[in-house]
Amino acid sequence: MNKGEQTRQAVLEQATVIAARLGLAGLTIGTLASSAGLSKSGLYAHFGSKEELQLATLGHAREVFIDRVLRPALAAPRGEPRLRKLFDRWLTTGRDLPAGCLYMSSKPEFDDQPGRVREQLVRDYRDLLDSIGQMVRAGIDEGQFRPDADPAQFAQELDGIVMGFFFAYRMLGDPAIESRARRAFETALAGLRTGSEQPIPAGAGRTDRQPVGS
Amino acid sequence: MNKGEQTRQAVLEQATVIAARLGLAGLTIGTLASSAGLSKSGLYAHFGSKEELQLATLGHAREVFIDRVLRPALAAPRGEPRLRKLFDRWLTTGRDLPAGCLYMSSKPEFDDQPGRVREQLVRDYRDLLDSIGQMVRAGIDEGQFRPDADPAQFAQELDGIVMGFFFAYRMLGDPAIESRARRAFETALAGLRTGSEQPIPAGAGRTDRQPVGS
Repeated sequence: MNKGEQTRQAVLEQATVIAARLGLAGLTIGTLASSAGLSKSGLYAHFGSKEELQLATLGHAREVFIDRVLRPALAAPRGEPRLRKLFDRWLTTGRDLPAGCLYMSSKPEFDDQPGRVREQLVRDYRDLLDSIGQMVRAGIDEGQFRPDADPAQFAQELDGIVMGFFFAYRMLGDPAIESRARRAFETALAGLRTGSEQPIPAGAGRTDRQPVGS
Repeated sequence: MNKGEQTRQAVLEQATVIAARLGLAGLTIGTLASSAGLSKSGLYAHFGSKEELQLATLGHAREVFIDRVLRPALAAPRGEPRLRKLFDRWLTTGRDLPAGCLYMSSKPEFDDQPGRVREQLVRDYRDLLDSIGQMVRAGIDEGQFRPDADPAQFAQELDGIVMGFFFAYRMLGDPAIESRARRAFETALAGLRTGSEQPIPAGAGRTDRQPVGS
């Protein structure tokens, strides 16, 4: 990594913290310049526009997620061990970020604001859910999980467990919240295993795996 | 409701939409004045400060939640029917809000910002989790749920299911997300019922119901 690359990484590191605190929409060349001690003109020359800065920051956050969460998970054996590693790294990485999760902070702002930043947020989110689904599918192939386990169902449930944890943990700061999240994960995982008897949801037959209103 | 009260309600209605879109921190006397077509000085005279405006808006959102979600739930029989009603109203009310959930949009901004707004957000959040826990406890008393069902565990899981739903639904707009959330709720509920066999989480014994690090 040369000097220019190092500077860019350091700047994006700071941009990620600002975006996690204020949302990506709160990340401007101005706020970044004063927090990084760099000139606005220098940052403009580098990123070109606020949108490019937001996209570069999102790209940096994705790299961090891949390095700290996805890569360690992929190093674990397929199926359950991989899902366990993913969950643990995701939980602890998000828990220990100084300003929390950039995705959760930024999403509301782009809900009704079409454009490249929203498209990238959606793409990253889909990639994450697909990765989880793929790990469940591998567990089915390996015979660890029930053949009728629903990868997309598990992906959404896991996402909810982790998102609920980030929210509650930063809000209430109660350490029991982490053990409850871990327990919820174990229950969800147990529901995937071969031989597990999933209780049949009462009244869920109608919508089960069918898009509502389709 | 007199004229003054009606105006105040209409203004707070608009303030709630702005806060859901931009977060409570994005709600200023200025943005509200231009969106509501009122004078800044009039709003200042009424609310006194940005913080008072934020607190009044939070109070309004709480009233809406009580009216549309909690009150209908409390009209249902104790235990499971009440939890079902709560979940359904919470899911559909949040789904149909034009700008989404004010709490999810505002939380990141106040994570590291102590003060009256954060205190109120925390209080409302605790109240919600306590209400859910209380409904589980009533279901235990009624003999519908297992005596060893964990109300706080269920409250956190339900919160995660709904939060994950709001996030995924607004982000991806896929109707299957709602049926998955409903299915996750049924699974969580089935785990509470008398006679249900909760799978014992592997390796969860250590932290089970014990605060981590305590």
